[in-house]
Amino acid sequence: MTKAPYQPIYSFKNDYSEGAHPNILQALVDTNLQQQAGYGEDEYCQQAIEILREKLQNPKADIHFVSGGTQANLIVISSVLRPYESVISANTGHINVHETGAIEATGHKVNSVDTEDGKLTPEDIKPILEFHADEHMVKPRMVYISNTTEIGTIYKKKELETLHTFCKANGLYLFLDGARLGSALCSSENDLSLSDLSHLVDAFYIGGTKNGAFIGEAIVINNDELKREFRFNMKQKGALLAKGRLLGIQFRELFKDDLFFQLGNHANQMASKLSENIEALGHGFLTKSTSNQIFPILPNETIEKLSKKYAFYIWSKVDSEKSVIRLVTSWATKEEAVNQFIEDLRNI
Amino acid sequence: MTKAPYQPIYSFKNDYSEGAHPNILQALVDTNLQQQAGYGEDEYCQQAIEILREKLQNPKADIHFVSGGTQANLIVISSVLRPYESVISANTGHINVHETGAIEATGHKVNSVDTEDGKLTPEDIKPILEFHADEHMVKPRMVYISNTTEIGTIYKKKELETLHTFCKANGLYLFLDGARLGSALCSSENDLSLSDLSHLVDAFYIGGTKNGAFIGEAIVINNDELKREFRFNMKQKGALLAKGRLLGIQFRELFKDDLFFQLGNHANQMASKLSENIEALGHGFLTKSTSNQIFPILPNETIEKLSKKYAFYIWSKVDSEKSVIRLVTSWATKEEAVNQFIEDLRNI
Amino acid sequence: MTKAPYQPIYSFKNDYSEGAHPNILQALVDTNLQQQAGYGEDEYCQQAIEILREKLQNPKADIHFVSGGTQANLIVISSVLRPYESVISANTGHINVHETGAIEATGHKVNSVDTEDGKLTPEDIKPILEFHADEHMVKPRMVYISNTTEIGTIYKKKELETLHTFCKANGLYLFLDGARLGSALCSSENDLSLSDLSHLVDAFYIGGTKNGAFIGEAIVINNDELKREFRFNMKQKGALLAKGRLLGIQFRELFKDDLFFQLGNHANQMASKLSENIEALGHGFLTKSTSNQIFPILPNETIEKLSKKYAFYIWSKVDSEKSVIRLVTSWATKEEAVNQFIEDLRNI
Amino acid sequence: MTKAPYQPIYSFKNDYSEGAHPNILQALVDTNLQQQAGYGEDEYCQQAIEILREKLQNPKADIHFVSGGTQANLIVISSVLRPYESVISANTGHINVHETGAIEATGHKVNSVDTEDGKLTPEDIKPILEFHADEHMVKPRMVYISNTTEIGTIYKKKELETLHTFCKANGLYLFLDGARLGSALCSSENDLSLSDLSHLVDAFYIGGTKNGAFIGEAIVINNDELKREFRFNMKQKGALLAKGRLLGIQFRELFKDDLFFQLGNHANQMASKLSENIEALGHGFLTKSTSNQIFPILPNETIEKLSKKYAFYIWSKVDSEKSVIRLVTSWATKEEAVNQFIEDLRNI
Repeated sequence: MTKAPYQPIYSFKNDYSEGAHPNILQALVDTNLQQQAGYGEDEYCQQAIEILREKLQNPKADIHFVSGGTQANLIVISSVLRPYESVISANTGHINVHETGAIEATGHKVNSVDTEDGKLTPEDIKPILEFHADEHMVKPRMVYISNTTEIGTIYKKKELETLHTFCKANGLYLFLDGARLGSALCSSENDLSLSDLSHLVDAFYIGGTKNGAFIGEAIVINNDELKREFRFNMKQKGALLAKGRLLGIQFRELFKDDLFFQLGNHANQMASKLSENIEALGHGFLTKSTSNQIFPILPNETIEKLSKKYAFYIWSKVDSEKSVIRLVTSWATKEEAVNQFIEDLRNI
Repeated sequence: MTKAPYQPIYSFKNDYSEGAHPNILQALVDTNLQQQAGYGEDEYCQQAIEILREKLQNPKADIHFVSGGTQANLIVISSVLRPYESVISANTGHINVHETGAIEATGHKVNSVDTEDGKLTPEDIKPILEFHADEHMVKPRMVYISNTTEIGTIYKKKELETLHTFCKANGLYLFLDGARLGSALCSSENDLSLSDLSHLVDAFYIGGTKNGAFIGEAIVINNDELKREFRFNMKQKGALLAKGRLLGIQFRELFKDDLFFQLGNHANQMASKLSENIEALGHGFLTKSTSNQIFPILPNETIEKLSKKYAFYIWSKVDSEKSVIRLVTSWATKEEAVNQFIEDLRNI
Repeated sequence: MTKAPYQPIYSFKNDYSEGAHPNILQALVDTNLQQQAGYGEDEYCQQAIEILREKLQNPKADIHFVSGGTQANLIVISSVLRPYESVISANTGHINVHETGAIEATGHKVNSVDTEDGKLTPEDIKPILEFHADEHMVKPRMVYISNTTEIGTIYKKKELETLHTFCKANGLYLFLDGARLGSALCSSENDLSLSDLSHLVDAFYIGGTKNGAFIGEAIVINNDELKREFRFNMKQKGALLAKGRLLGIQFRELFKDDLFFQLGNHANQMASKLSENIEALGHGFLTKSTSNQIFPILPNETIEKLSKKYAFYIWSKVDSEKSVIRLVTSWATKEEAVNQFIEDLRNI
Repeated sequence: MTKAPYQPIYSFKNDYSEGAHPNILQALVDTNLQQQAGYGEDEYCQQAIEILREKLQNPKADIHFVSGGTQANLIVISSVLRPYESVISANTGHINVHETGAIEATGHKVNSVDTEDGKLTPEDIKPILEFHADEHMVKPRMVYISNTTEIGTIYKKKELETLHTFCKANGLYLFLDGARLGSALCSSENDLSLSDLSHLVDAFYIGGTKNGAFIGEAIVINNDELKREFRFNMKQKGALLAKGRLLGIQFRELFKDDLFFQLGNHANQMASKLSENIEALGHGFLTKSTSNQIFPILPNETIEKLSKKYAFYIWSKVDSEKSVIRLVTSWATKEEAVNQFIEDLRNI
């Protein structure tokens, strides 16, 4: 993933280029001088938790807010595993590649598997379990998946059920990284609901940062075994914010009127519009994505011209003529910018 | 430190009961839809860094923003120490008591020293260096101090110079936790400036969370040896926020017109008013504090009555009749509340 | 603890100055070319385990052999504690002082307590439990004691029973470091048996290195909760020796005919002879010890003269005239050397 | 690698089935009652170090003895890397597979590469360096290789020179795991000397355990940057044996008259004899090995019959008819056993 130089013209580099949704800003203003308890024990966090539990249809879920995805991953994983236990991840998994060894820094190996689409199946996991047969090797105890994956694909309900059943049968915890769960659940192909996740995974998190919040991920723990003294882990890793209200207010706003889903829908629609038009112009894609990240394959010359007006990452080389780029849309992506991009691509 | 039950009436429990200063909220609104690079490479962080370098009179300082104090402490300390090296702290030091073993979780021992006033002197440190004589013991390599300390005291310039000289002579890095640096630098007894800190410590951080920001601490690294690849450490510990702009904007607002010092002054004035009046009513104090935390000693009956209208921590017992309470003021403390507290105390 | 220069004349510096008891050497010769399974799955380890289980009167005890005491401590402690949990130790405890931060390197804080005699009581532990009240602090979960302690004292059965009851009542695991357990159990004041330890502590280890073996400590796990997958922890910390037979053979020899106790007795008798005669010559002691480490207080001049013929550690200064020295005897200490020392002291 | 059941008949399972070479036993007897300083500061360690420095033609080499290979690997690697730095290894590397996550337990990621023969080349390493471009990923800083590799192959001098040059040019430390260095240096194809290793790698270790010692690996540090305070790392990881003499005596015996090489030669000759005869009988091999581990491919029926008289590992399946087995010879392998094995194979 080489960095194209940052351009102020219009950025499709990621889904965190802007601030927060105006409702959130307004709620911050409205609550600003209310005195509240610190460290997540404020009323706003409590309200957000109650709203989420209802959406999850899981009144017993433990819910904790942290500031970012790497933090959520490292806290959940290190709180669950014993020292010699490992976590299984797709090779492309965020914990395996893009967290500067955060999981290893807590003492645990990531067992990675090659996948084509960034998703794990029992068939990917079985050989790892068979191979790790004795105490000379780590003991895999957790499966880490992402929805959407790092390459824009999503899990279907059937796939997740199969994984869930397999994990239960094999003594593995199933943990879902939902940094882009908003886009996943709003994908045109999605058949999963928030409440499905209450039953199908042991723990997961709902990404706020990439779907309209300034910062914030909501960790949801379904499995009672994993709930004990979780806040100790958060504090130790520096994740217990003195003004936890900042996280509670944002999640309350995102979920009280389903703003979270509206934002995910907007992001996906902008991506679809890009996809459909890019395809119509005769270009192919690295993966078929129905989420807010798309990976078109374009001629290098075209890429160079586009990069004068648009910011995006060059994902990988295809051959000497062509490369894959990544275009990311978000809650804040302007439709005019999408239209202009398509127009510009057509005219190159 | 026993928790008194939280009361919605008026809280002197801490300096993070409210949101952020209105200037910060306004700046968040104003910048909200500007697209910016992620992970602290945005223009607002850059502006904040430049303003801070000027205030520090240290154009070469490395400055990084993180979300909280425990995070700042654990990242700086673990980035500096080799595996067998330790950090020296007052027994009351935040890293020694109130971070759930965050430093040990990165592999390092905290060598703690009893102190009366929460401050370290060369005399406190020398016996530790003498004792740790060979490879059967950890090797102390860093000294951790806080200004203000956890019990409200501050370092005078002369004291810090002495520590600095001692540390240099003994191969120790000096690191200052400035979670409440605003209050320290605005204390009536203070003779230190921000730019003094550029010369007297190897690294320190400037606390935003407890002086008007939602979240945010600015880590300042003066010593060139400690600057290398610092962002890798931040990312690994989950401290590199995707929307780093949230931190940059706040520090820009706090420092561009010295708002940071105005807020510190307000907090201290409110604390002084409390102190002077409590003293005038004949009560003593655990420590003489000129910062925003004061520790009056009151009869238990009085405490009980006060706790019906005010929230505060009971710090420790003195005897069967009296206890120490902690009162904390902040940028947001209302003078009417202070007046009322004094009035109520007078009438008990 | 300053090092006196090493002297080839006669050393009372420690109990590991010589090799191994001749029975052990003979057994190594006798078994040398027998092919055996690796990593502790050999017949000699199995034989040693069976002998030990019988001595312990605990057929369900899990027993594992490792090469040294620091290794035993760090493996047991890190295998038991969750990331945010801590271990309570006397200030003088080996894990707190003389293991170069080995416990912290596995991520855990050591909560240390000042004691006079190196032993812990419920009264020492209670304030620590009371203080650590919430998730901003580590959660103490284990108590670490040593028998003999680092300053030569021993636990009486009643004391250990009291500790055991207290720990059970407070959700604390009790772990006993038995690096010098041989000397403790052979002390004239001892009323504990190996089988008592099966009931009174959750885990402990029996030190071979300091009682006649080349290397080797036998970790005994009584509490079923702590037994799971223990060998994974050993392997991860580099403690699973390919030729585990080396450890099994030694413990078989030490315990099959109670050689372990004979050696402990010899060491203690040599120490007693030293103590009684030093006392008879009018000198005092730092602690009253009935084990193989004694701490006489001698005039500095006397110490200087003795150090021309004997090697020992100067433990601490008493005043400008006198210091405490540490004399250690072992299974290999020659009675002539003891007699000569007494004679020399008498003639100074 | 499935375990065939252990058989007392004759074992080719590994090179640590027997005790130690008789010279070592004799030296243990001869030195047994000599009083010596503890923790590796004894005369025997010093003698062994001097002999080794001469063999290495590197009088400045730092040499330390530890008890096993996993311990050597985890201490060297964790002492060198900063928290966010990683080590590159072949997928088959011992640290990547067979150390129960020992490296990750010290906080560091292992970047693994698929190789055919277990050896690394610059071409294997380059893509890893290119991929790890910024602070969102670990920073590879060390290359870990084994000689012989885990699958019996060896490095030629030219290959090691190329790696050395590449590592220097790219700021990477080169570390060689020599658990089976004896067999490597005695291979018929070897053109490396011990003194070559002084110039070509930053650190390596010489395996004693698998070449005639009870326990013991000699860590050799060539690069001055890596020498500082190394014993602190050893102590912290539980590797500083109180009776370090046990390691010194063994290495003195192995090297004072080149016993180490005689034993390596014997092991290799026994393996060659097996290889040549197995090949002559028409069987193929997984890898071409000139060291003490060979990997013949045999019909499953044949394997089953052989396993009634011989112990060995079944390494992997080839197809439904055939499997790869691993045969390991050692300093103690009896030529009659080798002859009998060949005879038995011929008659199946």
